[in-house]
Amino acid sequence: MSERLAERQQIYDLITSYCRGVDRLDLEAVRDVYWPDGVDNHTGFSGARDDYVAFLERVLPVLDGTMHMICNHRVDFFGETAVGETYAQAVHWGTPDDDPRKNFTSGVRYIDHLERRAGTWRIKERWAAREWTHSDAALRMPKGAPGPVGSRTEDDPLTALLARVRASQ
Amino acid sequence: MSERLAERQQIYDLITSYCRGVDRLDLEAVRDVYWPDGVDNHTGFSGARDDYVAFLERVLPVLDGTMHMICNHRVDFFGETAVGETYAQAVHWGTPDDDPRKNFTSGVRYIDHLERRAGTWRIKERWAAREWTHSDAALRMPKGAPGPVGSRTEDDPLTALLARVRASQ
Amino acid sequence: MSERLAERQQIYDLITSYCRGVDRLDLEAVRDVYWPDGVDNHTGFSGARDDYVAFLERVLPVLDGTMHMICNHRVDFFGETAVGETYAQAVHWGTPDDDPRKNFTSGVRYIDHLERRAGTWRIKERWAAREWTHSDAALRMPKGAPGPVGSRTEDDPLTALLARVRASQ
Repeated sequence: MSERLAERQQIYDLITSYCRGVDRLDLEAVRDVYWPDGVDNHTGFSGARDDYVAFLERVLPVLDGTMHMICNHRVDFFGETAVGETYAQAVHWGTPDDDPRKNFTSGVRYIDHLERRAGTWRIKERWAAREWTHSDAALRMPKGAPGPVGSRTEDDPLTALLARVRASQ
Repeated sequence: MSERLAERQQIYDLITSYCRGVDRLDLEAVRDVYWPDGVDNHTGFSGARDDYVAFLERVLPVLDGTMHMICNHRVDFFGETAVGETYAQAVHWGTPDDDPRKNFTSGVRYIDHLERRAGTWRIKERWAAREWTHSDAALRMPKGAPGPVGSRTEDDPLTALLARVRASQ
Repeated sequence: MSERLAERQQIYDLITSYCRGVDRLDLEAVRDVYWPDGVDNHTGFSGARDDYVAFLERVLPVLDGTMHMICNHRVDFFGETAVGETYAQAVHWGTPDDDPRKNFTSGVRYIDHLERRAGTWRIKERWAAREWTHSDAALRMPKGAPGPVGSRTEDDPLTALLARVRASQ
């Protein structure tokens, strides 16, 4: 099929895996979206995959949480190579909640040079291109009424549900 | 096809149906995304499908409008069961437009326990996990120049176009 | 396949092409998503495709940049006709960065009347329905640390990568 729908799905799942890995602090999932010789170019970091994961291990715990929301997803294929563009909005929050260095949202485009090796697509090089950054320091509101809340632990509703469903199989 | 692309599309359409139903105040469309014995766990509500729809019937008219924007969409299949994670940003607005209880945006992850029955996928249980809430009370701008505007009535450009196209078939 | 997955992909790619064209100031890409007799109805503009592109040529350079982020994407097919609904959040930025007329985000639903002609889908008429507009004038933050940055020139990381990959084929 010229649309290569199954391969698009595999590549889309790579991108959502990256976001889930960062947001749940599951950094092995982040590592797995790149080839072992993969490179990441980000604001404040440029270098090899494993160094990028080590960088995330240092900076993410400073925050209370993140949510990497992806929008437009486009892939152009060139044989065993592909170029992906994924629009993203990354929301960051931390304590105290009026500190703009810990409470901000950035608009980013993930530009991915992807490669297929033995039938599997992974990122060979990524450029996270900044578009805009907005402070959320004056906007944060309290959580209010009780209800489900996301977290980086096994109490997260997704992590708990996946564990439950897997155990029942 | 191991990617189960057609089933992914059915599940994605369930999620956009939910959003369209809430945003256009078409609550029968919301009811239909859950199985009759479905359960929803939300901020301020936890219970059976029909009670959730009754809850929405009470709280949504207090607002002038909502826009439930979905981003990352991920499904893991386990036979007749699936686990979905859909990132969302829900924008709410109301009168007066500087009231933060009626003008705010929340970041939510819809965690869905889905079940296939007789070939059809529906939600068996949902957890809407809150991630962040931002006040929009100081940010609201007037509508400005004329042009198409969304609404909850048959004047909405989508509702009007769908009626026109269906009538011409 | 009743889900018409390949056609959905073509239509989704039309929408991301539109966004990429506007955001990178590649207005021929914008023109191509409409049929030659296509019509666009937008805030402050309503008329023929080519007049809409001329309108964009005048108004976009006033800004330093835009990011048209699309979310929920839904298509209902009626033979050779389709009705699309695509939720979008359009972020605009400009100089000076505290001017709310140049620094704002709007929530929009693209309502598309699509037509298939000789096997190809294009937009016959679009209504960009406004939902909300928020000022970003008080929120803008400086770019901070070095790293990849988006632009409207051939230095943009996507434009540069696509040129590089195409040259190597």
